[in-house]
Amino acid sequence: MPKQSDTIITWFKSLQDSICHSLEQLDGSGESFREDLWDRDGGGGGRTRIFKGDLIEKGGVNFSAVHGQMPEKIASQLGLKENNFLATGVSIVLHSKSPHIPIIHMNVRYFETDQGDWWFGGGIDVTPHYIIEEQAKQFHQHLKSVCDQHHPDYYTKYKEWADNYFFIKHRDETRGIGGIFFDRLNSDINTLECNHAFVKAVGSAFIPIYTELVTANREKKVEAKDTAWQSIRRGRYVEFNLVWDRGTKFGLDTNGRTESILMSLPPMAEWHYAYSPDDNALALKTQSLLKKGIDWVNYS
Amino acid sequence: MPKQSDTIITWFKSLQDSICHSLEQLDGSGESFREDLWDRDGGGGGRTRIFKGDLIEKGGVNFSAVHGQMPEKIASQLGLKENNFLATGVSIVLHSKSPHIPIIHMNVRYFETDQGDWWFGGGIDVTPHYIIEEQAKQFHQHLKSVCDQHHPDYYTKYKEWADNYFFIKHRDETRGIGGIFFDRLNSDINTLECNHAFVKAVGSAFIPIYTELVTANREKKVEAKDTAWQSIRRGRYVEFNLVWDRGTKFGLDTNGRTESILMSLPPMAEWHYAYSPDDNALALKTQSLLKKGIDWVNYS
Repeated sequence: MPKQSDTIITWFKSLQDSICHSLEQLDGSGESFREDLWDRDGGGGGRTRIFKGDLIEKGGVNFSAVHGQMPEKIASQLGLKENNFLATGVSIVLHSKSPHIPIIHMNVRYFETDQGDWWFGGGIDVTPHYIIEEQAKQFHQHLKSVCDQHHPDYYTKYKEWADNYFFIKHRDETRGIGGIFFDRLNSDINTLECNHAFVKAVGSAFIPIYTELVTANREKKVEAKDTAWQSIRRGRYVEFNLVWDRGTKFGLDTNGRTESILMSLPPMAEWHYAYSPDDNALALKTQSLLKKGIDWVNYS
Repeated sequence: MPKQSDTIITWFKSLQDSICHSLEQLDGSGESFREDLWDRDGGGGGRTRIFKGDLIEKGGVNFSAVHGQMPEKIASQLGLKENNFLATGVSIVLHSKSPHIPIIHMNVRYFETDQGDWWFGGGIDVTPHYIIEEQAKQFHQHLKSVCDQHHPDYYTKYKEWADNYFFIKHRDETRGIGGIFFDRLNSDINTLECNHAFVKAVGSAFIPIYTELVTANREKKVEAKDTAWQSIRRGRYVEFNLVWDRGTKFGLDTNGRTESILMSLPPMAEWHYAYSPDDNALALKTQSLLKKGIDWVNYS
């Protein structure tokens, strides 16, 4: 019988494969993902896959599985004794060319030590350049239905966690419309298999969710004011990822593979002093909706 | 007799005034600085001044003087007891439109508490999109001559400090060609007046240094490959400022005025996966010179 962690790693790899295949189809440009295989000093490595097409201006779908002796600093941050660890997962960020299609992010991950500690983590969140309320509602209803099939508390708890996590404190605004975020999922009442089933369901929801967002928005006409606003929102995405995102900071601080970590940054971004999109009603509306605690599922 | 800190504040304000005036002249577009006055909850405030012209695509020359009760977190970081503090200074970042003109940064600052602690800090550093070795040498010789008039050890010590401070750890490269950086300047052998005199000399060196860099490069022809490379270097500037710069992090973490702090970000930046400027010999040379410990004063 294979080790449990081998089963999880195999599943993450197959998730990366199927998502890459689906995205190539959805993009429709005929472009393929570029793959870079890399090894980590100390153990393990990854498959970084990067895409540039017609629909997706810059996207990364990364798999990694790293293992070895845990650095003392990390053990102390996690509240663990020094030991051998395994960390594996899939991370995705897609920057669409059209300002009408949201930026999307997904991460699913698994961690274990040779002392018997283990947990899952992950989430999906969406950063529309323009928030369309009906689409935000559908997105959250989709996530709720995924969560509800596994635990009645998951959606409420993980939606709130995402609101708090994807928050740009120095702007007092959320990164987007949130989604779900969870960490250290290791239920007393459930088994590892049950927790893995939830993580699989989250991973499998990515393509249907993104396809819905793309289909609803890809034919919309792009004007100069839309592209200008997109550049500003991309700047905020950079600010979140470099200033506040714990995953990014952790990676950069522990000599992770920089190009794989920073695939999350947009192809370009702009910063203008005290920018306000005064001529753009939908941008102003979007700004007003970048806050925590909106009950999107019941939004009306 | 005015308090010592009043004298310092008055000098910083006059430095801001004279630098803004000189930059408007140097730019030559007829544009003026935009000024925003702001107050800080808890005491003090600032004069944020932002410029957009022909030479300078985005520039900020900011003065602030904030005071009040020191937050516990900051007192602990500084190794001080909780007390009342005053922090004042001038901060400058200029992003030139031409890729042939470096990005320049200067900061001069003074800090004191009502317990009798006080110190100066500051520095000047330059981030050329293209490193021209002769210009790097002249820049460092200029800084050395400023330092040598105040203390024989200052240049060597503060040049090394700048190399270590303006370092993008996750890229294993320096931000640019460095310069000088110093903090907690409070000499046992010198008086506050002597230390202030050094800080004045650093502040007064800014316009001559920048004018020299502008004059040497402003007529150079700009090609598409130069602008492409500039966008990448601006991305690295963003990475340094948001991931590693302690001043930026401190400001964002303590509810500083976000628009004043982030004036340091370039007007635009780009990120491309695993970018390499293969067609651009000067860019490749620049990359090879982004390292610590180059003896620019004696470079040959």
